[in-house]
Amino acid sequence: MDYKEIALKKHEEWKGKLSVETKVPITNKEELSVAYTPGVAAPCLEIEKDESLAYTYTGKGNLVAVITDGTAVLGLGDIGPCAGMPVMEGKCALFKAFADIDAVPICIDSKDTDTIVNTVYNISKSFGGINLEDISAPRCFEIERRLIEMCDIPVFHDDQHGTAIITTAGILNALKVTGKTAGNLKIVFSGAGAAGISIAKMFMRFDLGDIILCGSKGIIYEGAPYNNTQQEAMAKITNKHNIKGSLADAMAGADIFIGVSKPGIVTEDMIKSMAENPIVFAMSNPVPEIMPDLAKAAGAAVVGTGRSDFANQVNNVIAFPGIFRGALDCRAKRITEDMKKAAVLAIANVIPENELSPDYVLPDGFNPRVVKEVAKAVSSAWKENDR
Amino acid sequence: MDYKEIALKKHEEWKGKLSVETKVPITNKEELSVAYTPGVAAPCLEIEKDESLAYTYTGKGNLVAVITDGTAVLGLGDIGPCAGMPVMEGKCALFKAFADIDAVPICIDSKDTDTIVNTVYNISKSFGGINLEDISAPRCFEIERRLIEMCDIPVFHDDQHGTAIITTAGILNALKVTGKTAGNLKIVFSGAGAAGISIAKMFMRFDLGDIILCGSKGIIYEGAPYNNTQQEAMAKITNKHNIKGSLADAMAGADIFIGVSKPGIVTEDMIKSMAENPIVFAMSNPVPEIMPDLAKAAGAAVVGTGRSDFANQVNNVIAFPGIFRGALDCRAKRITEDMKKAAVLAIANVIPENELSPDYVLPDGFNPRVVKEVAKAVSSAWKENDR
Repeated sequence: MDYKEIALKKHEEWKGKLSVETKVPITNKEELSVAYTPGVAAPCLEIEKDESLAYTYTGKGNLVAVITDGTAVLGLGDIGPCAGMPVMEGKCALFKAFADIDAVPICIDSKDTDTIVNTVYNISKSFGGINLEDISAPRCFEIERRLIEMCDIPVFHDDQHGTAIITTAGILNALKVTGKTAGNLKIVFSGAGAAGISIAKMFMRFDLGDIILCGSKGIIYEGAPYNNTQQEAMAKITNKHNIKGSLADAMAGADIFIGVSKPGIVTEDMIKSMAENPIVFAMSNPVPEIMPDLAKAAGAAVVGTGRSDFANQVNNVIAFPGIFRGALDCRAKRITEDMKKAAVLAIANVIPENELSPDYVLPDGFNPRVVKEVAKAVSSAWKENDR
Repeated sequence: MDYKEIALKKHEEWKGKLSVETKVPITNKEELSVAYTPGVAAPCLEIEKDESLAYTYTGKGNLVAVITDGTAVLGLGDIGPCAGMPVMEGKCALFKAFADIDAVPICIDSKDTDTIVNTVYNISKSFGGINLEDISAPRCFEIERRLIEMCDIPVFHDDQHGTAIITTAGILNALKVTGKTAGNLKIVFSGAGAAGISIAKMFMRFDLGDIILCGSKGIIYEGAPYNNTQQEAMAKITNKHNIKGSLADAMAGADIFIGVSKPGIVTEDMIKSMAENPIVFAMSNPVPEIMPDLAKAAGAAVVGTGRSDFANQVNNVIAFPGIFRGALDCRAKRITEDMKKAAVLAIANVIPENELSPDYVLPDGFNPRVVKEVAKAVSSAWKENDR
């Protein structure tokens, strides 16, 4: 049996991966009178006087909603709200397992941006944070932006920022391993969707070098006739020399390749055309843009993928549990750029410099130090800059 | 310390009465690959093909949302969505403790009927049932009606139906105790809001007799100048002889008094004016319309209240856990009138006839047979009539 067969069987057995438990005893009328009426009136009235006391008297401060519209579920695409729920439950299970956060899965039966924004906003006071998940681009950008503006709790679209944060951490360590220096690197992306753009923006915050994004029609450049709004905006801040051409053209002389696109579209020759000791993160899942053994044979110095069976996995559990843990711990009202940068550095620094190697530029998601360090860094970044 | 002091202290200690736990192990990459990506794709694709498989592969079938807008919380009134959350968490805890149902509390930050209906509908596919809670009248009627029409899962406003079901069960047993016969009874209500109207309608389904509702301005009669829409509709189907006057006028000769109004508004003289062996359910909380000792001294044969420290408590935990357990077990698409009637009879019949007494017409909510019998009856009622 492969994972899918096992998973199908197990999911049927589990009938849901979560349970909601009561932390308080309710076995007699006495206990009922404390946890429920009449006793419960007292905390209600306190919160009525001061809404922030919801953090004191309810579970709000440790509760995150994992919300999807089911339009971009894993690599499966638009499979609908109900079909996305096994993933959302899984994500909630990870929140608990990695960061002791209570998380509830919610699917929204609409693809309309306004409807999604309003629905999430209307229920947002129930939670201490909102994790948007598997919402397709370009709607995901506007939905997240508007909700961040409207809500006074952290709203975070993990598909965009999680991958960006972890990839950047991996690249920072890969630079150390290869002796490359941030600043004048040539960085080529295959994939200019939500993930690609988000990673590119994070790279810019660390001033890594010149970024060239390639979409399905080749290099994205200013003035191209087929760009979408997002890509047009990116064209203005990437591709310094406004070069044109194919992905292969772009990769010649590149120091770093970032793949968030399609299986197998990178050849050994393309790797060979890159600069010395190239860094290759081929994150198409489950089949990467180029398999690690081929990339290495062609000269790649460091290879990362999205897969757990290869070294340097860009695994989302490395970032979101610690980011939310940190944001909840300091009761941040949003997750700022500084907090994301702090998460990048915390992830990179989990691995001591003397342990770094081409096959170890990213920590294992199950390393218990990861959540702890990320949470601490994220919490401090909020405290220092944004209160 | 009284309950409120204890509750405040306890709620601060608990910081939330619920926790969301993962039922599945996630301690290594292998387990992660089954509960999450890549394995999770398999159940997702099955649900995409057939939405009803969400009941097989996710927790939907045992998951209920407890939803409020915070406008009619306990006896506290409109205290806002956040302030209502300690009650919602408590209700979720009761769902777990009494019926092993996973329930999540959600507050909606709007009082607008359309907004509430749309918000709940938009998230409804996440759940196997929806418990509306503490939403003020008359909005609660329209909100529930529209959601029942729109959703293909049970939607139940417990404040209306729960109390109605339990009160009716208690009255049916009180009739046995007092030797009264359904059909020609005179029944007087103090309180013509959501709860009163809902109880009155349930009494009609059991053809108990002539119902006279009294609001704050006295008896509700057809043609009264001050009725609201709900009360106007009720005036047409109650008060057979269209009598007018005060609550005291109404109570003369009545067999049954139902109080869902205000503390202490019923006097001993009013009880004395009732028919022989009158039944008095004075459910204003925490202070009843008349205290049980006074009512009994004035001749009441059976007295019920909403309080746990007196006999015959109309306690909501008697109904909703079993009703939802039964509805979820048979995967009912809604909770029909037949299911509610079945719940009434199941609750009444939990007490064997030879154990019935003036002080024992309603079972204890903690009696484990209650949930079991109610669930079974509700489930059967759906199966027989509504598939």
